[in-house]
Amino acid sequence: MMEKYKFFDLPEFSTVKDILENERKNYVITLFGLCKILYAGRASSIATYSSRLITFKPDGSVLVHSNKKLKPVNWQPSSSEVKVELGDELKIYVERKRPKEVLEILMPIVYYLSLSKVDEGEFHLFGSESEMVEEVVKNPELISRDFIPLEREYQTPFGKIDLLGVTSTGYLVLEFKRAQAGLEAVSQLKRYVDYLSWKGEKVRGGIVAPSISKSALKLLKKYELEYFQLSPRLLSTIRLK
Amino acid sequence: MMEKYKFFDLPEFSTVKDILENERKNYVITLFGLCKILYAGRASSIATYSSRLITFKPDGSVLVHSNKKLKPVNWQPSSSEVKVELGDELKIYVERKRPKEVLEILMPIVYYLSLSKVDEGEFHLFGSESEMVEEVVKNPELISRDFIPLEREYQTPFGKIDLLGVTSTGYLVLEFKRAQAGLEAVSQLKRYVDYLSWKGEKVRGGIVAPSISKSALKLLKKYELEYFQLSPRLLSTIRLK
Repeated sequence: MMEKYKFFDLPEFSTVKDILENERKNYVITLFGLCKILYAGRASSIATYSSRLITFKPDGSVLVHSNKKLKPVNWQPSSSEVKVELGDELKIYVERKRPKEVLEILMPIVYYLSLSKVDEGEFHLFGSESEMVEEVVKNPELISRDFIPLEREYQTPFGKIDLLGVTSTGYLVLEFKRAQAGLEAVSQLKRYVDYLSWKGEKVRGGIVAPSISKSALKLLKKYELEYFQLSPRLLSTIRLK
Repeated sequence: MMEKYKFFDLPEFSTVKDILENERKNYVITLFGLCKILYAGRASSIATYSSRLITFKPDGSVLVHSNKKLKPVNWQPSSSEVKVELGDELKIYVERKRPKEVLEILMPIVYYLSLSKVDEGEFHLFGSESEMVEEVVKNPELISRDFIPLEREYQTPFGKIDLLGVTSTGYLVLEFKRAQAGLEAVSQLKRYVDYLSWKGEKVRGGIVAPSISKSALKLLKKYELEYFQLSPRLLSTIRLK
């Protein structure tokens, strides 16, 4: 029977190799130790010797964390392969084939290794963009009295339109953001509007979001696009303390 | 003297509370246990009871990981505050004031807790966009024979231009990407070119990247923008296996 967790204090390199090679599909493995990390792929990087926390997940993803920030110092996505070589230092290679990239982790010492039987669990998000679109489809008057929704996720060569509809003046392209809309949202909308215009359609475009940044609003006006204020509905049972 | 690491097997709730409240600035703390997570802030979410790995960093950032993918299930950025309440379950509140958001972690059992003296370490990235700009500034003929670089990080109301220069036909705006350029890169460049055009300038724009996606190239041509192929120089001492 698989245990819920195991812990190895100052493990031998051979133990680490054995566990990384044989238990990687069964457990989330965390190494805490001194490490130097070389990365070569889309760019290249060196992280000098330092104590870091390295996590290997069963799906092949690997994260190297320092003591700050949410973003790992280095990482490899799922479906990466792990090979371990023994020597003066432990050498761990995390490789991805396409695109070809490799993370080389050199460890003179592993302080501890832990194996955890982590589950995936269920996750439900409320107040998503998709829920906002849903609400507008059900209540198109939230946008305007003459708005008729036609198609969600309308595919263009330049991305998917969140919601395409018509009003008395022609097509209306809507781009939804669940948080403050920025310049990227306006540019994204502009692409879709341009695409339909190039096809000879009469088209307007609007951002649907709880708020919009100053610079984005300025750009929106320059492009003669519109802004519809709408907040995602948060689940009422979760309240802020 | 602070130890390099400590490990607590099936810790009491009071021990977890004590450590989270008093040692959080000194160590990276990892809890492995059964947890349910409620989040309310820019959206709201529920992650049902499941075994997950929760990491608290000294800067206040918190990550909750399942057994898959690089991205945490839930997280809070640095400068979050942690409060712990004892009860039938352990209740951990991770709060951020602005914007107001809270992560509520309910744990009926903590399998283990580890404290690790993780360091920040040094990190060097080679083949960055900044290095690509540097190279073009030193060798402007990589773009064209008549290109004269004027200013890096040129500020516009719609973002910073990576490199602004002139050629015999007027201004040339360059947007650099170290990996394949996509639709967003083209839209970004278009914003800058539009901005200078609105000011009455004669202006061309170009993407500088090792490659460009098909759809991005199509949009680029529609907008009458240009593409200059350039790869970041990777550090020669790091070689792919």
